[in-house]
Amino acid sequence: MTQSTVEKTSVTLLGLGAMGTALARTWLAAGHPLTVWNRTPARAAALAAEGARVADSAAEAVAANTLIVVCLLDDTSVEEVLAGTDLADKDVVNLTTSTPAQARARAEWARRRGARYLDGGIMAVPPMIGVPEAGGYVFYSGSRELFEQHQETLAVPVGTTYVGEDTGFAALHDVALLSAMYGMFAGAAHAFALIRKEDIDPASLAPLLADWLVAMAPAVLRTADHLRSGDYTKGVVSNLAMQVAGTPTFLSTAEEQGVSPQLLSPYFELMRRRLAAGSGEEDLTGVIDLLVH
Amino acid sequence: MTQSTVEKTSVTLLGLGAMGTALARTWLAAGHPLTVWNRTPARAAALAAEGARVADSAAEAVAANTLIVVCLLDDTSVEEVLAGTDLADKDVVNLTTSTPAQARARAEWARRRGARYLDGGIMAVPPMIGVPEAGGYVFYSGSRELFEQHQETLAVPVGTTYVGEDTGFAALHDVALLSAMYGMFAGAAHAFALIRKEDIDPASLAPLLADWLVAMAPAVLRTADHLRSGDYTKGVVSNLAMQVAGTPTFLSTAEEQGVSPQLLSPYFELMRRRLAAGSGEEDLTGVIDLLVH
Repeated sequence: MTQSTVEKTSVTLLGLGAMGTALARTWLAAGHPLTVWNRTPARAAALAAEGARVADSAAEAVAANTLIVVCLLDDTSVEEVLAGTDLADKDVVNLTTSTPAQARARAEWARRRGARYLDGGIMAVPPMIGVPEAGGYVFYSGSRELFEQHQETLAVPVGTTYVGEDTGFAALHDVALLSAMYGMFAGAAHAFALIRKEDIDPASLAPLLADWLVAMAPAVLRTADHLRSGDYTKGVVSNLAMQVAGTPTFLSTAEEQGVSPQLLSPYFELMRRRLAAGSGEEDLTGVIDLLVH
Repeated sequence: MTQSTVEKTSVTLLGLGAMGTALARTWLAAGHPLTVWNRTPARAAALAAEGARVADSAAEAVAANTLIVVCLLDDTSVEEVLAGTDLADKDVVNLTTSTPAQARARAEWARRRGARYLDGGIMAVPPMIGVPEAGGYVFYSGSRELFEQHQETLAVPVGTTYVGEDTGFAALHDVALLSAMYGMFAGAAHAFALIRKEDIDPASLAPLLADWLVAMAPAVLRTADHLRSGDYTKGVVSNLAMQVAGTPTFLSTAEEQGVSPQLLSPYFELMRRRLAAGSGEEDLTGVIDLLVH
């Protein structure tokens, strides 16, 4: 075994849930000195055996290093845990799930305590941490200087994507992508429900479904072009009027199969409203404007 | 130019909308003798110049060949157009969008008139026809013998996927995949709505969104495994309890950004109902059972 001659940045990690534990292991494996703290001490014991220093309190953990990574349950936990620590001159990187407004407020809160602050939104589940080919990453926003200073360390467990100086943007990107994913899962749930009572193997439908969703996902690139230009008719192949004309087939099929249309009908209703407003030559982009107050 | 010595199957095509016209062009280009009919004759004129024979009536078009491909507006149009034709000993391939029950009833209707019948559900838009790399295809269901007899001809414009003897299965697969797509589009609409008032370029979000949806689409393969086994807890990484605990962040972010939650909340509501029924250790598969009456 050769010891690296480059000194690795020491990291303090607060929070050892499944995600925190996965992060901790990759830093330890990469030779970063690591101090950990968790409200429930048992979770730290296994990491101690792997070389982590276990702090007795959050205050002790924060005092140990400059780079403080926080991965707790929610924003309230962050405030509770950090309240009793001295954040002066610390570099706080908060990976705790939050809303954009919570991230912005937490950044201001940290700054008032003398810390620099970077917010992160994790686009991965714990098994993807330390597995670059799994494609997970973390959105970061806030101080670009702070991001660049720690990027190498932050990139050890999982990829990094910086999305802007506005501290809320990491959370906003995170929530936007995960919201879209839930929409996709809702659509897939409806699809599986449709075949539930038929002699069709779900495992036959699934690869067709996955391939189709993969093939259709790039449609969002044209949506972005429409939103930028304000012209929602450019390059439209199947216009809104045609698509609304097709919706009765979807709703009738759901009825035939004994499936509630509740996951489809809100979108169809917005399509109908947009069509009724005279936008039949557009594609589906106009639905977005109906969502925004 | 060499003339193929293999005789190509003659095709009759009823319906020259954008899809019918695209189909017609690929058969003509591949050297299949083609007879076309359309309610509005003007659409047939351009095809005549490309070598199609234009019939004066649907009856004449049907009389011209054995293989009759139908691509009309809806099932009612199919009945109207075919009612005045002699279908005895014809091979009817109906690509008109319909529900599974409509497809089954139309198959029986055609059989009573002496025809063999195959139903198709088109997973493509017209620009994908004749472009194999675009990945479009048609689901077919009904007589496997009829499918195999005409597969080579049917595969000229776009790929073929046979999904079973039950005539309704092509329509069911078609509606299932397109329903899932609308769910994905609904999720993407919510995502774009979230950034609408922010200084974030939609064209920066879009590739991140597309990549994320592509990465998450294969989750439906595990859903299928769950449905097959009946055990919805196997291999679960982020369980229902954790995911429901995360939903307030999504709803609060929507509220902060002035975005209606109407496209997300029905799915979240079903997640909560499933959790309340004691399924916290499952993933999201159980939502499907709540959709089926």
